Amino acid sequence: MQELNQQLDFIIELDRLKGVYRQALVKSDKNRFENSAEHSWHITLTAHILHEYAAEKVNISRVMCMLLIHDIVEIDAGDMFAFSDQKALAYQQDKEIVAAERLFGLLPEKQFQTFNQLWLEFEEAQTVDARFAKAIDSILPLLQNMRNEGGSWVRHKVNKSQVMKRNRFLEGLAPDLWLYVCQQIDYAVEQGWLVDA
Amino acid sequence: MQELNQQLDFIIELDRLKGVYRQALVKSDKNRFENSAEHSWHITLTAHILHEYAAEKVNISRVMCMLLIHDIVEIDAGDMFAFSDQKALAYQQDKEIVAAERLFGLLPEKQFQTFNQLWLEFEEAQTVDARFAKAIDSILPLLQNMRNEGGSWVRHKVNKSQVMKRNRFLEGLAPDLWLYVCQQIDYAVEQGWLVDA
Repeated sequence: MQELNQQLDFIIELDRLKGVYRQALVKSDKNRFENSAEHSWHITLTAHILHEYAAEKVNISRVMCMLLIHDIVEIDAGDMFAFSDQKALAYQQDKEIVAAERLFGLLPEKQFQTFNQLWLEFEEAQTVDARFAKAIDSILPLLQNMRNEGGSWVRHKVNKSQVMKRNRFLEGLAPDLWLYVCQQIDYAVEQGWLVDA
Repeated sequence: MQELNQQLDFIIELDRLKGVYRQALVKSDKNRFENSAEHSWHITLTAHILHEYAAEKVNISRVMCMLLIHDIVEIDAGDMFAFSDQKALAYQQDKEIVAAERLFGLLPEKQFQTFNQLWLEFEEAQTVDARFAKAIDSILPLLQNMRNEGGSWVRHKVNKSQVMKRNRFLEGLAPDLWLYVCQQIDYAVEQGWLVDA
């Protein structure tokens, strides 16, 4: 039963992701901050619903697994706002690699390898599956901010060019979604939710 | 773009599941109540980690989809404690069927059919995939309560026989997990977290 105990320890450790809070607000729950566990659920389902828009075939099961686990490292490393400065983001990346080793390392060796490699694939964004997963991870905060009068963009004075850059994965991957995102960004600038720069 | 707009409306509607609170407590976040969105993330990943214990082969992708969507009906129907009385549970079931029609009905027809059927399959628990998904949906609250000195069992004076019955799916489906659950239940009775009846 040793392997089962390792797996159950990992499953219980996952509970801590429910206490890691992000910049996005939950409009439906009195605009409190969103945590990374509920965010992970939301984007995994979003990927499932939208995967038909991918220009190249994605393996949706793999994409879903990537999105379920992509934020687990935040249990140790904390969440960092996507539009933080480059130095802070690079330091965050180092912390996340150590966190992945410790957290996925709670699992039996074979599952550790599977999860750690899947997480690294997501981070490196070199495969179609990983790039699609990353694209979905960017489009959902955009949808949330659009329904929340700019949400975290307004609070952090985010520029149009930053959001364009962050969603650029979509351009080749899912042209219909990219078109939609561009229209939304233009509207957000008109409304003063994004800085026109 | 009409289909895309329907899908995006559904994705935004999903946000509301983050405001539906359950009886389980989140030990890692000051023992606040858990919401159904973060719960859905946790059990989807739990199913992935434990599916090797299934005696018959489960289609883990289908199981994951079931678990991602199984609580969406609570956006309209609210959450009901698993050990509520039979009359209340039957009334809840009627409300959930109406909720599934409305909520999945936001999606384009083809996705509506897929999601609604998958949700019904989970509810009816007649297939191996659905029974495994249900089993996981029961084992996680048990793990949470065990790490929380009985948690919601203590507050609601739950009996051993109720927890045995609720986890009985595991007996044939995943004997190793069933053995583990029986040991945990015995320990919970010893500690006075479950009523010995």
